[in-house]
Amino acid sequence: MRLGVCYYPEHWPESMWEDDARRMKAMGIAQVRIGEFAWSRIEPEAGKLQWDWLDRAIGVLGAAGLEVVMSTPTATPPKWLIDLHPDILPVGADGRARAFGSRRHYDFSSNAYFEASHRIVTLLAERYGNHPAVSAWQTDNEYGCHQTVVSYSPDAVARFRDWLRARYTSIAALNAAWGTVFWSMEYTSFDQIDAPVGTVTEAHPSHRMDYRRFASSEVARYNRMQVEILRRHAPGRVMVHNFMQNFFEFDHYPVALDLDAATWDSYPLGALEEFWFSPELKSRWLRTGHPDFASFNHDLYRGMSKQPFWVMEQQPGPVNWAKWNPAPLPGMVRLWSWEAFAHGAGCVSYFRWRQCPFGQEQLHAGLNTPDNLLDIGGAEAMQVSQELQLIANQNAKVATRVALVFDYEAKWLFEVHPQAQDFQYGPLVFEYYSALRSLGFDVDVIPTSSNFDGYSLIVVPPLPVLPDDLPQRLRDSGAHVVFAPRSGSKTVDLCIPANLGPGPLAQQLPMRVWRVDAMRPTTRVAVQWGSQQGEARIWRDLIEVSGGTEVVATFDDGHPAIVRHQRLHYLAAIFDEPLLRAYLAAVAQEAGLPVAHLDDGTRISRRGDLTYVFNYGDAPLDAPHPEGAKFVIGSAQVPPQGVSVFQVGPV
Amino acid sequence: MRLGVCYYPEHWPESMWEDDARRMKAMGIAQVRIGEFAWSRIEPEAGKLQWDWLDRAIGVLGAAGLEVVMSTPTATPPKWLIDLHPDILPVGADGRARAFGSRRHYDFSSNAYFEASHRIVTLLAERYGNHPAVSAWQTDNEYGCHQTVVSYSPDAVARFRDWLRARYTSIAALNAAWGTVFWSMEYTSFDQIDAPVGTVTEAHPSHRMDYRRFASSEVARYNRMQVEILRRHAPGRVMVHNFMQNFFEFDHYPVALDLDAATWDSYPLGALEEFWFSPELKSRWLRTGHPDFASFNHDLYRGMSKQPFWVMEQQPGPVNWAKWNPAPLPGMVRLWSWEAFAHGAGCVSYFRWRQCPFGQEQLHAGLNTPDNLLDIGGAEAMQVSQELQLIANQNAKVATRVALVFDYEAKWLFEVHPQAQDFQYGPLVFEYYSALRSLGFDVDVIPTSSNFDGYSLIVVPPLPVLPDDLPQRLRDSGAHVVFAPRSGSKTVDLCIPANLGPGPLAQQLPMRVWRVDAMRPTTRVAVQWGSQQGEARIWRDLIEVSGGTEVVATFDDGHPAIVRHQRLHYLAAIFDEPLLRAYLAAVAQEAGLPVAHLDDGTRISRRGDLTYVFNYGDAPLDAPHPEGAKFVIGSAQVPPQGVSVFQVGPV
Amino acid sequence: MRLGVCYYPEHWPESMWEDDARRMKAMGIAQVRIGEFAWSRIEPEAGKLQWDWLDRAIGVLGAAGLEVVMSTPTATPPKWLIDLHPDILPVGADGRARAFGSRRHYDFSSNAYFEASHRIVTLLAERYGNHPAVSAWQTDNEYGCHQTVVSYSPDAVARFRDWLRARYTSIAALNAAWGTVFWSMEYTSFDQIDAPVGTVTEAHPSHRMDYRRFASSEVARYNRMQVEILRRHAPGRVMVHNFMQNFFEFDHYPVALDLDAATWDSYPLGALEEFWFSPELKSRWLRTGHPDFASFNHDLYRGMSKQPFWVMEQQPGPVNWAKWNPAPLPGMVRLWSWEAFAHGAGCVSYFRWRQCPFGQEQLHAGLNTPDNLLDIGGAEAMQVSQELQLIANQNAKVATRVALVFDYEAKWLFEVHPQAQDFQYGPLVFEYYSALRSLGFDVDVIPTSSNFDGYSLIVVPPLPVLPDDLPQRLRDSGAHVVFAPRSGSKTVDLCIPANLGPGPLAQQLPMRVWRVDAMRPTTRVAVQWGSQQGEARIWRDLIEVSGGTEVVATFDDGHPAIVRHQRLHYLAAIFDEPLLRAYLAAVAQEAGLPVAHLDDGTRISRRGDLTYVFNYGDAPLDAPHPEGAKFVIGSAQVPPQGVSVFQVGPV
Repeated sequence: MRLGVCYYPEHWPESMWEDDARRMKAMGIAQVRIGEFAWSRIEPEAGKLQWDWLDRAIGVLGAAGLEVVMSTPTATPPKWLIDLHPDILPVGADGRARAFGSRRHYDFSSNAYFEASHRIVTLLAERYGNHPAVSAWQTDNEYGCHQTVVSYSPDAVARFRDWLRARYTSIAALNAAWGTVFWSMEYTSFDQIDAPVGTVTEAHPSHRMDYRRFASSEVARYNRMQVEILRRHAPGRVMVHNFMQNFFEFDHYPVALDLDAATWDSYPLGALEEFWFSPELKSRWLRTGHPDFASFNHDLYRGMSKQPFWVMEQQPGPVNWAKWNPAPLPGMVRLWSWEAFAHGAGCVSYFRWRQCPFGQEQLHAGLNTPDNLLDIGGAEAMQVSQELQLIANQNAKVATRVALVFDYEAKWLFEVHPQAQDFQYGPLVFEYYSALRSLGFDVDVIPTSSNFDGYSLIVVPPLPVLPDDLPQRLRDSGAHVVFAPRSGSKTVDLCIPANLGPGPLAQQLPMRVWRVDAMRPTTRVAVQWGSQQGEARIWRDLIEVSGGTEVVATFDDGHPAIVRHQRLHYLAAIFDEPLLRAYLAAVAQEAGLPVAHLDDGTRISRRGDLTYVFNYGDAPLDAPHPEGAKFVIGSAQVPPQGVSVFQVGPV
Repeated sequence: MRLGVCYYPEHWPESMWEDDARRMKAMGIAQVRIGEFAWSRIEPEAGKLQWDWLDRAIGVLGAAGLEVVMSTPTATPPKWLIDLHPDILPVGADGRARAFGSRRHYDFSSNAYFEASHRIVTLLAERYGNHPAVSAWQTDNEYGCHQTVVSYSPDAVARFRDWLRARYTSIAALNAAWGTVFWSMEYTSFDQIDAPVGTVTEAHPSHRMDYRRFASSEVARYNRMQVEILRRHAPGRVMVHNFMQNFFEFDHYPVALDLDAATWDSYPLGALEEFWFSPELKSRWLRTGHPDFASFNHDLYRGMSKQPFWVMEQQPGPVNWAKWNPAPLPGMVRLWSWEAFAHGAGCVSYFRWRQCPFGQEQLHAGLNTPDNLLDIGGAEAMQVSQELQLIANQNAKVATRVALVFDYEAKWLFEVHPQAQDFQYGPLVFEYYSALRSLGFDVDVIPTSSNFDGYSLIVVPPLPVLPDDLPQRLRDSGAHVVFAPRSGSKTVDLCIPANLGPGPLAQQLPMRVWRVDAMRPTTRVAVQWGSQQGEARIWRDLIEVSGGTEVVATFDDGHPAIVRHQRLHYLAAIFDEPLLRAYLAAVAQEAGLPVAHLDDGTRISRRGDLTYVFNYGDAPLDAPHPEGAKFVIGSAQVPPQGVSVFQVGPV
Repeated sequence: MRLGVCYYPEHWPESMWEDDARRMKAMGIAQVRIGEFAWSRIEPEAGKLQWDWLDRAIGVLGAAGLEVVMSTPTATPPKWLIDLHPDILPVGADGRARAFGSRRHYDFSSNAYFEASHRIVTLLAERYGNHPAVSAWQTDNEYGCHQTVVSYSPDAVARFRDWLRARYTSIAALNAAWGTVFWSMEYTSFDQIDAPVGTVTEAHPSHRMDYRRFASSEVARYNRMQVEILRRHAPGRVMVHNFMQNFFEFDHYPVALDLDAATWDSYPLGALEEFWFSPELKSRWLRTGHPDFASFNHDLYRGMSKQPFWVMEQQPGPVNWAKWNPAPLPGMVRLWSWEAFAHGAGCVSYFRWRQCPFGQEQLHAGLNTPDNLLDIGGAEAMQVSQELQLIANQNAKVATRVALVFDYEAKWLFEVHPQAQDFQYGPLVFEYYSALRSLGFDVDVIPTSSNFDGYSLIVVPPLPVLPDDLPQRLRDSGAHVVFAPRSGSKTVDLCIPANLGPGPLAQQLPMRVWRVDAMRPTTRVAVQWGSQQGEARIWRDLIEVSGGTEVVATFDDGHPAIVRHQRLHYLAAIFDEPLLRAYLAAVAQEAGLPVAHLDDGTRISRRGDLTYVFNYGDAPLDAPHPEGAKFVIGSAQVPPQGVSVFQVGPV
């Protein structure tokens, strides 16, 4: 549990570096990330390498007792390289190559860029791999930012064809798997297959889904190339990448598998504004961010990180890149920092040391203002640094009995094949997560391949493709498992299973989804669950049950709304929040879990023997705590934007 | 009056065909449409023809006593053909060719595709033209679907120039007709004329209008080519095309003129969601469709069909292609079927026999589920099949005394030249139609070229170009004629008539539209009609009258709101619904027509001596019927989603 | 103070010209603009010049005693010229050349078009430069209309590189000025720099800002070329251009500097519908236009015109080019005409003499209908012509003590770098202007380079780049100066000033903007100003003050909302209207200005010793006037859409 910062020595006069390093150290910062956009300074012209300034920058930081997180500079290939190899540029759905002049202007499938990246990473690794001040390496920067995962370049299409060859072996197998006979779309050769874009009406969904899978795998391949070089030259260093919040266009799990630690960039206010939240929620949490947003990501990245995950970039004040960029309330930078540690973070690293007075992000705050005075965020970071001394059990685990299954492919599938325009994976997953957090649970966000031992409650948001062995593995875990609608509704080739939905789950939970009902956003259907009433929206699976499956709740037209078989539960619709919370609470109680009922501004997390209480709301709150709890930070009264931490029993 | 179904033998194992055919027959189905997307199976590679499977499929169906409606497969040219002739692909307004991978990826003006179509249709017609099981032929599939009428390819532009040459003879005549001197747009050669697209601001309206006319005529030419081949090889067979609901981008009348029967594809729920209806109406009729939507189309296609029209594709459950795809209420598939027959349909053919588990439409319901169990739609189709036995006078006519004039070019003209953004032909026509239906009338939807004998009331929705002889022909009919605003406001070249609006009508109805007033959607102007008050919206013609024309109603600023001369009436604005209904009711009474006042969920249709009552509403209704009426189907109490049919006097 | 009209002899049979000229003269029209779209008639084929018809048209007008305003026809290059030089066409952000077929289809940077324009203007000037009937020349037509200032053609990019070379001298200087090191965007040669478009995420803001400046300078260069030719051949004639309302994409000041008179095209209803006004305001002023819209433009163009400005095109009835095109209320054409004269116009020229029955604008009203009868607008123009005789002091000045600083670059900068999506310069400037007008002030709209002598109150809407000497010059003027937020927040290179905002102003008004707070549109922050309360929205500068700067008002979280230092005031936020008006009223009173409180439909203007009262509202108003005022036009009771003019003391 340490603090870090992101720093750009190339943006500032060299005369400032020493003072910057001294002040970082004095503030309690342990590590400094550098270099991820510095290619044009390292190699201003083809082959003309300038290491001296970087040698000196690392030297100054190291001399001050700071650890350096060195980044490969591949997120921003310089102009001379683009001019040499214009085929590096990604190509949009409109068939046009994107232009130089911002960042991430490269195609993951570009052969020229793969070679150029290999070369610059090798040079960098050779020079600094064994540098004593460099303790970790970051590959590239925010893969997938600005919708750059999917490209439609000739290189991409050529590699896609190879990917299809490897996956299907024969063109006949592909035709059969996709069902290209529909609308006469049959192929006689892999070389006939283009990118699924620009068609008169929607392209074949299996084709589109495979293109998404292919594009995702290209990211993993590209990252693996960098990590392999770095491991060779930088033995013992921690390998990381900074994933960006909510960029789900590629599967993070295989990328994280090649790293030592997953790190992510946390911008709670920018995310609130730019993502799916309703205007009401955007106003409600304008200056705090949504209380479950950062938590969800902490729990997600903790679930894929071998070492404790990091927040590589922590929002320190207003950002510049959302449609509106409000200032956070005083206290929020501290709250966000503690929230990360409470969820198991090994490091919280602020972005950036000092606000930069030029370029695209000149209105993005830093810990210091452009005229080099400490900003609010800087002051709060210093407070966190001091408070960290009060925490004894720095390496405690986050122990949870509740899990949420997360799957990147599910998101792509519902984009390829929505059936209801607003059936979107991200927001729906967030509803389930948020409901669990409002009941006071710590949650593990985990992939389908996880070991499920030890969980008492597992929630499976809409998971259209159920791996064949998953239902049995979930049942064998002994946990209560709650499945959302559309679970098991597709085969891996994006077809309807021969036994209809829920596909392989029907063996453990005998039922059949014989029809789906995709509703307008304002449509509601009443649900009766015992004496409780609630509402369904967006989607209904129309179900018939068999083999001992029990109907727990019904819609007002008589169709089953919730069915269960022993500890396996199936929700046939998206429910309104009160009904969802109530049902999850009931299942949790049955599973022996203690249930809290928190208001929307109160959130609780546990790590080791400490309990953290966060107040996102407008009024002071009374931290729910047992007799004898000892407050390590704060007190039982948590002010707005405040954090309290208590321990039960003797410290 | 018979039932049919759409079937894709190529999508299913051959082992299922016989059972499918047997069950169809048992269900009461008489005809089966096949083949419209089967090109890649008929000719998997250039010149490699595979007839055997199709021979067997037709054989199985014929052996079961089913008639086959064979389709030409030209809606989906296969990949090898596109690779041979990339100029088959249509070109968008963005200048880019559309890609292979869905359907309708061809340009009606492509010379290569004209030839390729000629060849495959000939081959098909030669093989099956005289097959005893094949009783009808469908050309292509849903011309115009997915905005494919207008293309901007080099072939299209070249043919457009020829079309202009034929229309105007000399470039001077074109310059004069269009008025190209405005903004220095004069041409000195037909070869200088491009497609009217991509200009800095709007292109010349006469240019745009002629491009729309040209594109429409290309559809008719293409269809005629297919029909001529088929008639040569398939003597005595019924020639049809399945028009798609609300695809008004080409003029259906000349296409229908080349056919024996017009057929259309009826998707009441998909249409409600995808077309112009307000969010309130979309919620109100979510699971039934709008009560006047299918009726309007029945009446439209009946008006252009030499033989009784068909519904070629009847929605059997939820579809997949709207933004949201709700399930219809139980009973609606039966109601829609009876509604078609009540409006004169010769056949109702369901789309499709069985839901397909792969491809773009895998969530489109069928009469059977993908696992081959009977779905609700299938059960309702069986009920209709049994009830059809109860109808004695199967070939009765729909006799009407009310007509609505419909004109495809009017739609294009208001798109080219709206003046008020929401002055849209389709929705406005629908308002007049709906008002007439709410008054209990059966309505003929007819073109301007019709014979008007026998009508008592004719409504002319906004018809900007009045053929010179039309006003006199309408007056001579003896009917009351109600003209909507903007009637006669343009010449055929899309200019203002020398005598201003209503152009040639001013001879029969002396008046002059000296100004137009195009209002914001929320603007309302009060109208006083005798003691009644109402509201105008969207549009006002400011009028001065002469020669005995009478001012019947006025706006609150004194301008005439309704004027009439004997039996010719002119509405100077778009009125709110109550005023429109009240005025039409008054005119109808004056014309001697019996007027009903139906609520929005009740609709009545008459065919022969039978009266059909449809309940689209939520509550049971008492069918308005005379003493002594005998109910052939249902009773005087019509349940929600119910149909009752009665006969007056002895059966 | 005279009337004019726009006329297109080429649109009408020559037989009508004489009668048209006679009626113009009889109506009191003094000048007639012709020729701006006539290229295809002057030169129907390359080199084939046809002067005879134009000779005759000018002859007819001159013989009737009318002065001719001759226009260069360069807004509409004919088709043969485009076919000869396709590189004339502008290129959009999508990389595609715009097509021929409307107007303004040329690139200001096209070398071919520069030459072609030089040639046709020379030919025209040689022929008519000394014609006695031609008293003035208009260059081109509405520069910038239809977003045509910025183009991305190869010619434009090549000229941009030259422009950068001239501005920065060395590529190192450019890299330093822009800060290209951010995201590795450094250049080693000017030839590497492309247009800032098509990038993966936003292009560098300094790059984008310079491209806007470059594009603007291309307009001035192009216009200067035309003016220089015309001055050479047409000595003594008045040189004008007709600027279009609200087309701020190029800096009008340098263009106007090359002219004798600035003229503008006034379409109050079209502007209301097409520009930023809220739906509520669009409905409120549907048939009058916003009461401050035409005034603002009059005051803007008066401020850049050497001779009295003109309205070159005055809306005479409904237009055709807005989404909805309502008819103005009777009286508005007269009101708009008088409003122009009250603000100092030298001429009001109506567009157009007669509504044209063909082409894009066939539903644009004229003074006469297409069938050549006088329309309402024509009748009102005649009334104005007669009333003009009642005004004795025709050349009186508009004397003002209140100024508003206007800056075109500010608009571009906030588009390039908004930080809050709805921080838009045009609407914000309009808010300040409207507040001043509601307080009864006449207002000069002036550039930053103005002499500020004689003003008592100067309002500076958001002005991000403060010229170094401006703060001192404003303080030295002795006026009270009110600065809006974001003043001085950027350097000329679009970076943050070294001392942060307000940059150079901090010397005169000691303060520091250490953070900005960009809020959602619905966010409000309470402001306390003495005992008054108000609300802030859109934007807040968070300020700390020093050196005697006083905090006048605060936000509810304690930050300063208004600060002042002597007569310099700084508003730290965008305020709601009541607070803005109240504060400006208080400052005005302190500055010794008489303050009125007008309702939203009442507006007052003064010129010489006459006071004009305009009634935009729905009810008669009592004109506020002193004892002994003598009404020259109208009376103390001003009817809706009425104008009254009074003089104080003996006339």
